Amino acid sequence: MNLDALLYWVGMAAVAVSALTGVLDSSRKQMDLIGALLVGVATALGGGTIRDLLLDRNVFWVVDQTYLVVALATAFVTFFLARSLHLPPRLFLIPDALGLALFTIVGTQVALQWHAPWLVASLMGVTTGVVGGVLRDILCNDVPLVFLKGELYASAAWLGALSLIGLQELGLHGIWASWIAMSVVLALRLLAIRFHLTLPAFAPRRSD
Amino acid sequence: MNLDALLYWVGMAAVAVSALTGVLDSSRKQMDLIGALLVGVATALGGGTIRDLLLDRNVFWVVDQTYLVVALATAFVTFFLARSLHLPPRLFLIPDALGLALFTIVGTQVALQWHAPWLVASLMGVTTGVVGGVLRDILCNDVPLVFLKGELYASAAWLGALSLIGLQELGLHGIWASWIAMSVVLALRLLAIRFHLTLPAFAPRRSD
Amino acid sequence: MNLDALLYWVGMAAVAVSALTGVLDSSRKQMDLIGALLVGVATALGGGTIRDLLLDRNVFWVVDQTYLVVALATAFVTFFLARSLHLPPRLFLIPDALGLALFTIVGTQVALQWHAPWLVASLMGVTTGVVGGVLRDILCNDVPLVFLKGELYASAAWLGALSLIGLQELGLHGIWASWIAMSVVLALRLLAIRFHLTLPAFAPRRSD
Repeated sequence: MNLDALLYWVGMAAVAVSALTGVLDSSRKQMDLIGALLVGVATALGGGTIRDLLLDRNVFWVVDQTYLVVALATAFVTFFLARSLHLPPRLFLIPDALGLALFTIVGTQVALQWHAPWLVASLMGVTTGVVGGVLRDILCNDVPLVFLKGELYASAAWLGALSLIGLQELGLHGIWASWIAMSVVLALRLLAIRFHLTLPAFAPRRSD
Repeated sequence: MNLDALLYWVGMAAVAVSALTGVLDSSRKQMDLIGALLVGVATALGGGTIRDLLLDRNVFWVVDQTYLVVALATAFVTFFLARSLHLPPRLFLIPDALGLALFTIVGTQVALQWHAPWLVASLMGVTTGVVGGVLRDILCNDVPLVFLKGELYASAAWLGALSLIGLQELGLHGIWASWIAMSVVLALRLLAIRFHLTLPAFAPRRSD
Repeated sequence: MNLDALLYWVGMAAVAVSALTGVLDSSRKQMDLIGALLVGVATALGGGTIRDLLLDRNVFWVVDQTYLVVALATAFVTFFLARSLHLPPRLFLIPDALGLALFTIVGTQVALQWHAPWLVASLMGVTTGVVGGVLRDILCNDVPLVFLKGELYASAAWLGALSLIGLQELGLHGIWASWIAMSVVLALRLLAIRFHLTLPAFAPRRSD
């Protein structure tokens, strides 16, 4: 399997798990089928869309309709599962961490292949990884989770993107660098949840 | 009147009625003239702008300044009318349904002429129809109406866009297909309001 | 110093002061280092990014990584300063007004050089000036300040952009017109804060 094929399938998997998390999250709000579908699709496709607009590429799901079909189908199935089953909220954290890891690596690789400068490429990885969730939270009218004090999230993505760029700069093949960097993001995120690893934050204020 | 001329005038009418709904909606918040103008313009031009960015077309109102002038003028007049008259809130629903119908058909046709795949084209119609209202609600810091449980909205637009594509695929001329599909969206939306037609939704939860 | 060099340095200064205001504002919310950095970067780069996407230009900070480095470095330093010092909230208003003035003029000039029609160009100036702050407020889940009843803000930017276009149309050199228009925006904004200059607004309603 070459790098392009790997990125294609990893991207497709990331779209599916993100659509799932979008619909699960929307179930906390009074949304109907179409609202849940739209939030699922926005979560699944939002990050890569912003990346493609910023890089002036063709938007990936406009060129290849398969991504849109996968997002819609996953959201559709999740909606009816989530209505009939009582899913524990913590179940949500594993696919969300997986989507973050997959999207970050795909987004960074796409930006590198587009010859973006390295710092921009790392930020494109973070963008692809977190923007879907930010859209999801804005559409549900919450403060986006990624901005709140909490366990490593965007920082895990950023460290993964930077390690991908560093490993490839050291001569490692893109496929191995991708697998390692995905593991870095996933491990950092899951360890952060388990052991409450956080970054320095603003101290709580009395007012506001 | 050929199809291009029809789409031009329908688009212009959609811009005007959407600017009107944006300003009417902003009157519920403590906004001043410029805030109301900006919300009106964002509601009027937002959907088509996102469609053009996603399709990598030139943004319609940057190319043809007339749309911007119509949006600004309508918003300006509506602001001073809304200040002096007491308009019943339900009056708002008719132009909003009209804007949804007009924008959905224009958006779908533009995407088809740009040779987008059919499922993408139908979603571009929905995008053009609903994104302006989503922006309006985000800027006013509400949960966007389109995502909430309620009478058919985005689903009416989607069915209209799909019927447009289906009718043209069956060989009907674009002009007739456009008029029929506009009527489908408008009728579905107004019947849904009248008879409280809804989609399946998440059951209310106790917590949250 | 020619016009291009002036716009480059003014743009860089605007990025720095906007990153500063973004981080200061995020300190009111429970954000950690990465949240504050992302809000700072979005505030600093958001307006110019939307302008470039609408005009179908290459996004300025993707082409020239320096802007991103300046935004990140300013946000980083501001985060640790804001954590250790107690800054009075009113201090925030001066750099915010400066960023508004600088970005408005850069945005209008860029759009004019891109041969946008004049009304579009003036709105691109307003967009570049205010969108960063709108993003900042949406990410912090507030109603964007620019839309609320209050002292002149977007209107100051718009008058400045229009005076820039008018002065250049009258034959004044772009450098002088830029300095004068920047002073117009800054003076209008600061005088509006000092003397509570406001636009007509919707009257308060009893309900909602």
